[in-house]
Amino acid sequence: MRNIKLIIEYDGKNFNGWQKQPDKLNIQGEIERAICEVTGDEKVNLIASGRTDAGVHSLGQTANFITNNDKIPIEKFALAINSKLKKSIVIKSAEEVDERFHSRYSVKSKTYKYVINNSETGTAIYRALEYHVPQKLNVEEMKKAIKHFIGEHDFKGFKASGTSSKSSVRTIYDADVTKDGERIVISLTGSGFLYNMVRIIAGTLVDVGLGKIEEKSIPEIIESKDRKRAGKTLPPHGLYLVKVEY
Amino acid sequence: MRNIKLIIEYDGKNFNGWQKQPDKLNIQGEIERAICEVTGDEKVNLIASGRTDAGVHSLGQTANFITNNDKIPIEKFALAINSKLKKSIVIKSAEEVDERFHSRYSVKSKTYKYVINNSETGTAIYRALEYHVPQKLNVEEMKKAIKHFIGEHDFKGFKASGTSSKSSVRTIYDADVTKDGERIVISLTGSGFLYNMVRIIAGTLVDVGLGKIEEKSIPEIIESKDRKRAGKTLPPHGLYLVKVEY
Repeated sequence: MRNIKLIIEYDGKNFNGWQKQPDKLNIQGEIERAICEVTGDEKVNLIASGRTDAGVHSLGQTANFITNNDKIPIEKFALAINSKLKKSIVIKSAEEVDERFHSRYSVKSKTYKYVINNSETGTAIYRALEYHVPQKLNVEEMKKAIKHFIGEHDFKGFKASGTSSKSSVRTIYDADVTKDGERIVISLTGSGFLYNMVRIIAGTLVDVGLGKIEEKSIPEIIESKDRKRAGKTLPPHGLYLVKVEY
Repeated sequence: MRNIKLIIEYDGKNFNGWQKQPDKLNIQGEIERAICEVTGDEKVNLIASGRTDAGVHSLGQTANFITNNDKIPIEKFALAINSKLKKSIVIKSAEEVDERFHSRYSVKSKTYKYVINNSETGTAIYRALEYHVPQKLNVEEMKKAIKHFIGEHDFKGFKASGTSSKSSVRTIYDADVTKDGERIVISLTGSGFLYNMVRIIAGTLVDVGLGKIEEKSIPEIIESKDRKRAGKTLPPHGLYLVKVEY
């Protein structure tokens, strides 16, 4: 028995998210099928660092599985699985890890980015990979605003309403907004993220950039724990799971 | 009569190139149709800085047209045309220019880039936008090699065989290779480029990166004017017309 850790890039478009579900194209199901074809295992349980929603991209999703296969050398695994996958999923690397390694429970931090095209006209080439905001955003205000999210907070107001989780307290370790030409990138590294949390923070920062929310009022909005005080949930195609640290 | 200059972004995928041709989806034809719908002109002749081939992308193609329309304010033109276009073409800006301005004859320089994904596994998200080279490329050698292209040269060996043009002498003003993670970008600015010239230079630089061609031998390969001494023509999906200067 071997415990194998994969780092996975995927183009979220056309997928109904990470999680396996019948009759809907999903990333977990596609990779599990490919692993079975490669290893000869009858069934495999692929555990990810967490789900990603329909349409969300990944540059560094991490997942692990246990296999009975002891023949395939570890350095051949990624390419072998890729050969059985659609081109919209790529296993970037495969590594044999300690049997105690668990992709979800062992997470130390996750980094997400949200990419915005901030031009009047939008973008043709990157239209499936960036969210378009036609009004000019004040990036300096967004840069100040995002710093208020750093630290341990109860992010109850920044999760999809109606979803339950034991605690909505999370710690943000690092956060920044950068601009390169007409592209604005919001980056967040944290202990974990609630359902839709990054997309709601990004929506709130867009409101700051538009002057609808003052950057100074962010701490108060966080403390209010009121979903209605935060910005809207931005669409999934601008969101990327960048990396998971263990 | 007004002479209007457009800057145009397009995703080359699914188009049979810039040039108008019957029964094949092309960028020129799509934009001319949209302009007619917006201006009410019966016919319009859109002149580009030059053609781009099937599958090639543009961040800054430039084209101009003469219109009889004197009603639409210039600042509304880009968005009006965009509203009649597929999302894979975006007019980034429209500007009223002197009647003597001609998108092709007035060109001072053009900048192209060729984007390579240099990772063993390739990329899922950017697979339609980057050419995949799985073998590790030596970027330092590629950086040295590209500098030999700068200056005035007869690029007869770097154009598609069988194509004729009056002269194959062109001047390269600036050229560089940069690397960011697994992405390698080849940039070339010149007075003009022959048919397939950037894609053949990029193919030659890949051969340098693979150790198949020595960087020192580039001047001799250029002087030989022998297409067979240069590298292969790389596919169009890694190529971008970045900007045109006047």
